[in-house]
Amino acid sequence: MLYFIPRSLFDRGMNRLLALALSAAVLPACLAAQALATDPPATPADVVAQAPAGAWRPIPADELLVMTIEGGKRVVIQLAPGFSPRHVANIATLAKAHWWDGASINRVQDNYVVQWGDATEKKPMPPGLSATSPDDYALPLATRRLAVTPLPYADPYASSTGFVGGWPVAMDGTSAWLPHCYGYVGVGRNLSPDAGTGAELYAVIGQAPRQLDRNIAVVGRVIEGMAHLSSLPRGSGELGFYTPTEHQAPILTVRLASELPAAERPRFEAMDTLSPSFANYLRLRANRKDDFYDRPAGGVDLCNAPVPVRAAP
Amino acid sequence: MLYFIPRSLFDRGMNRLLALALSAAVLPACLAAQALATDPPATPADVVAQAPAGAWRPIPADELLVMTIEGGKRVVIQLAPGFSPRHVANIATLAKAHWWDGASINRVQDNYVVQWGDATEKKPMPPGLSATSPDDYALPLATRRLAVTPLPYADPYASSTGFVGGWPVAMDGTSAWLPHCYGYVGVGRNLSPDAGTGAELYAVIGQAPRQLDRNIAVVGRVIEGMAHLSSLPRGSGELGFYTPTEHQAPILTVRLASELPAAERPRFEAMDTLSPSFANYLRLRANRKDDFYDRPAGGVDLCNAPVPVRAAP
Repeated sequence: MLYFIPRSLFDRGMNRLLALALSAAVLPACLAAQALATDPPATPADVVAQAPAGAWRPIPADELLVMTIEGGKRVVIQLAPGFSPRHVANIATLAKAHWWDGASINRVQDNYVVQWGDATEKKPMPPGLSATSPDDYALPLATRRLAVTPLPYADPYASSTGFVGGWPVAMDGTSAWLPHCYGYVGVGRNLSPDAGTGAELYAVIGQAPRQLDRNIAVVGRVIEGMAHLSSLPRGSGELGFYTPTEHQAPILTVRLASELPAAERPRFEAMDTLSPSFANYLRLRANRKDDFYDRPAGGVDLCNAPVPVRAAP
Repeated sequence: MLYFIPRSLFDRGMNRLLALALSAAVLPACLAAQALATDPPATPADVVAQAPAGAWRPIPADELLVMTIEGGKRVVIQLAPGFSPRHVANIATLAKAHWWDGASINRVQDNYVVQWGDATEKKPMPPGLSATSPDDYALPLATRRLAVTPLPYADPYASSTGFVGGWPVAMDGTSAWLPHCYGYVGVGRNLSPDAGTGAELYAVIGQAPRQLDRNIAVVGRVIEGMAHLSSLPRGSGELGFYTPTEHQAPILTVRLASELPAAERPRFEAMDTLSPSFANYLRLRANRKDDFYDRPAGGVDLCNAPVPVRAAP
């Protein structure tokens, strides 16, 4: 068996196997778990696997957007009302109105975004949408205190970066904003000062297009089913839009998890970014040194240290 | 027509349309071209479209690896012999031996890599492969002078970054290395000090996994057909390997372009990273300010300023 790259992910796989085995109370797996509990975690995946229950925070059901696309494939998006309150309120209004049911995925541009919404651009909006503006792209720091876990490495797009309330943030002296990382969801818009309603959404499927930060609203992140979006065929039209002969994947339903029957409601937890587990995770993301990695990087990019999220146990 | 995001790519599309129109010598397009020639370029795509012939350098045919996969889809990889001479020599040897014909794509891990090679791990190697070692992961700066176009923005993984001979480079005080950017190709390996032969290759399909820099050899980049790799179904096995019931996409042939009949030989050019056009391109990648972008980032990540490459005119 060749490991190829990288050992860390092999470990993560092993941890997944271990979790499965533990749930069946298999003896050898229990012995392995004991070994994990005594050895200090060597990889980010180890930290995640060993994090105590207290290191996790449940994600409220009304902050989970559940999108079901063609073939019954489920994509779950965690919304960020603390950072984008008006856009998230609009998205909740649109979901409650079942506005996206029958919409479609209309654009897939390689190393950039998957975008969905109403291809006709004519569907009437539900009442009660908030007005948005470029003021919604960043939080002014003067008006609130944020408990920041700093990421002490240079960033080409911000004067500092870190994590707040389970989210990565980029900051300058006066404001904080969510970055455009892989899997992050933003709001399509027309030319400025239009800031979009939230009806037209996209998810990043490539290198973080951070030039969009503060030019467009980031409202959340995909936490399940990302591969259903990222592996879609690329569109051959301008900007990766599908041409008339290409297949726009239909969106069957979009619901807030809080509106689903309890039995169908997905439940997730995000790692507490103020926890010792998260500090340890960040340290190891920046300093890989194990059977596979010989040379620790000594740093990590804001978008290359994704906040761990898991299905609630 | 809503532009959504981003205007720059709309412009790029317009430039593509323009190029098509120009080749047919359509009058309105010529007028548009005149307008482009007098207006200073406003976007990176404008710079690329307007770059003079002298800003481009042909890529030698023996540095192009042409991989044809299932369905006759073509993927072209530009090799970097200046940075990874031993691995690239091995890859050339393997291609000339037709070693990959009948191999397959065996692993697709979301936001990470697509990997291909001999799934049996038993196929004999051709004679004449070079020995490689971790010394091959970076170029020592003491032994050569590099003409560097600096990228004057902070990087969390290196003390400085820039471009050399058409390639992005990360540097510390003593060495320079190719970064793991989207679409970049590296050499799978076993545990260190094995540095891999070059027979097992992968391409990055997500956020740049720069922690792999100097832990594994980067040998080139995909310059055509990237979407054929990035849109493949993700594997559900450990590390994204395909399970026995999942489809390993067959590789039909892999050839150096220099070995193909002249009529079938693809020809590409990369922008000269010492040219004024490239300096202008970098400036605009870091400072978007146009109809769509209100707020220039004031910086750009090494992996978010891809060196422009085009089919030779």
